[in-house]
Amino acid sequence: MTAERELIAGIRARTPRFGGGVRLGIGDDCAVLRPSSGHELVVTTDMLLEGRHFRREWHSPESVGHRCLARGLSDIAAMGARPMAAFLSVATPGELAGNGQAGWVERFLDGLLALAAEHKVTLAGGDTAESQGGVLADIVMMGEVPAGKALLRSGARAGDEIYVTGALGGAAAELARLERSARWKAETQKLARAEGEAHPHFFPQARIAAGQVLRRRGLATAMIDVSDGLSTDLDHLCEESKLGAEVDAAAVPVHALAVEAERRGWTDSGLGLALDGGEDYELLFTTRPGARVPKMIGGVAVRAIGRMLPANARKPRMVLRQVDGRLEPLKARGWEHFRRG
Amino acid sequence: MTAERELIAGIRARTPRFGGGVRLGIGDDCAVLRPSSGHELVVTTDMLLEGRHFRREWHSPESVGHRCLARGLSDIAAMGARPMAAFLSVATPGELAGNGQAGWVERFLDGLLALAAEHKVTLAGGDTAESQGGVLADIVMMGEVPAGKALLRSGARAGDEIYVTGALGGAAAELARLERSARWKAETQKLARAEGEAHPHFFPQARIAAGQVLRRRGLATAMIDVSDGLSTDLDHLCEESKLGAEVDAAAVPVHALAVEAERRGWTDSGLGLALDGGEDYELLFTTRPGARVPKMIGGVAVRAIGRMLPANARKPRMVLRQVDGRLEPLKARGWEHFRRG
Repeated sequence: MTAERELIAGIRARTPRFGGGVRLGIGDDCAVLRPSSGHELVVTTDMLLEGRHFRREWHSPESVGHRCLARGLSDIAAMGARPMAAFLSVATPGELAGNGQAGWVERFLDGLLALAAEHKVTLAGGDTAESQGGVLADIVMMGEVPAGKALLRSGARAGDEIYVTGALGGAAAELARLERSARWKAETQKLARAEGEAHPHFFPQARIAAGQVLRRRGLATAMIDVSDGLSTDLDHLCEESKLGAEVDAAAVPVHALAVEAERRGWTDSGLGLALDGGEDYELLFTTRPGARVPKMIGGVAVRAIGRMLPANARKPRMVLRQVDGRLEPLKARGWEHFRRG
Repeated sequence: MTAERELIAGIRARTPRFGGGVRLGIGDDCAVLRPSSGHELVVTTDMLLEGRHFRREWHSPESVGHRCLARGLSDIAAMGARPMAAFLSVATPGELAGNGQAGWVERFLDGLLALAAEHKVTLAGGDTAESQGGVLADIVMMGEVPAGKALLRSGARAGDEIYVTGALGGAAAELARLERSARWKAETQKLARAEGEAHPHFFPQARIAAGQVLRRRGLATAMIDVSDGLSTDLDHLCEESKLGAEVDAAAVPVHALAVEAERRGWTDSGLGLALDGGEDYELLFTTRPGARVPKMIGGVAVRAIGRMLPANARKPRMVLRQVDGRLEPLKARGWEHFRRG
């Protein structure tokens, strides 16, 4: 058996099938999926590249596997959908394959499959290959949602209030610390899992429950996940809804790790990390003005941070209301991962 | 706008939406798909790597885009399904991005989208990134099939007859010629498209129509596409059906290009290319003994090449009956792309 077939056989042996949606998983030309009656499928794909989204000397293989699936899960959450199945394509340099149980690929799968099991996601197929330049993973996530009920980016209207789940900037703060502390780098390399939300960068939590509650209660008019950073993702929502937006700086929930990062000098501004740091995987959504929004949804705090404005070609699309009341343009400058200047 | 967003906006602008299955395409967190009533979805993913599956000095960008989609289409054909939507993730070296209309990525998309239009496949989403080591594309193809009717690899029984569509070894013969002729390499570099089946390696045709006819008529008991080579793909079918197989060497339809390759000395054996050369994208299927199989199905010739045998642990899984009647073991040694020798 070739190394590739061995790897696939290994994945197949350790992949349980959850729920009734996946009729046929790994082992044929295609997987076969049957959505529940009256439901539509939602599909998203995300690439994770070594050097751009992770570094082998910073991230444990388990963290890379977890983050790979978390990105897709977060897109499913942002539609208000229930996750069902994942497909994984992974290209790895020759030196990482075929190392047996302790190998990089096996530990990567450990991280990915642990998160998949938590959300009852079946790994239903994929592809493997040898890469010439570092690890590259492409994840396809599929979920289901009652027909016509998916929450889109395009549903907001002028006057709608803007909300966000959880706190922002924590993932970027962990990364800023990594860039400055060799000691902490050695620690994070060993992180194979994390309890709850202790490590928002290494083991992010997708807001699957909150997304479904928002969809079921009909509270959100539009929704997106904060994967590229609040400023960039709000810009996407504005673009698809053809609106502008105003954000209150004082209302933005800055993650405790971002506050700490500012205090310790790892960053100039904790608020900056919350606005532009990416990979928070929180949900950004809009509601009709005056809608009664609970303080907690699906186990996570939600907070009003601003409002949608009519589009105005003569003004900046987004503005930030400072604590002193001044308005300044809010630019989309979300996290470009490891490419910042 | 960043280069990545520009590329995505460009793809979105030139991607028509075919049919009613894709409710929402590029531009949100997820695409939304609604299969026809009473249907299931089939899903396959395939990676295409520079250096392994193609070389930029051999293949035009249009050929690479065509082949990328053809691989996925062929898997859909092998289930007897109708193709619906594709998702494309592509990582390219920095020097290939942002070259405007004449750039490599745009021409790659030309090839991919031309084939997609031919089969009414909507490009419904994807991801782009910069790679460190050559082009890497991952294609997800989705199709639909009446519930419970997908043709699997596992449905064959002992005594079933083995059939194959078209002729085999043509793609491998084109590749063998490439390795030997600098002049022809210069010609193939310019191939932007091919009429019909003139270039089975550069512009392969997936057997979508034949697959659906076989499913509708209830003729096939098991089916797989010949992507890795007849010997390897028949081995997969044997494995999933828990059987052995016997192939008649004299019955294997050797492609005219493979016959020519042997005559010109580009290969030792045209039959060898037909048995082990990959990327033919023909369909290999089994029928009940004595089933009446038309000579042409879905516009392509079909040919009986052998029969399924009971599994026997003391014998080789597959045997090849030579022209003189001798039986010898048939080993799965399908095309390893550019890794031979």
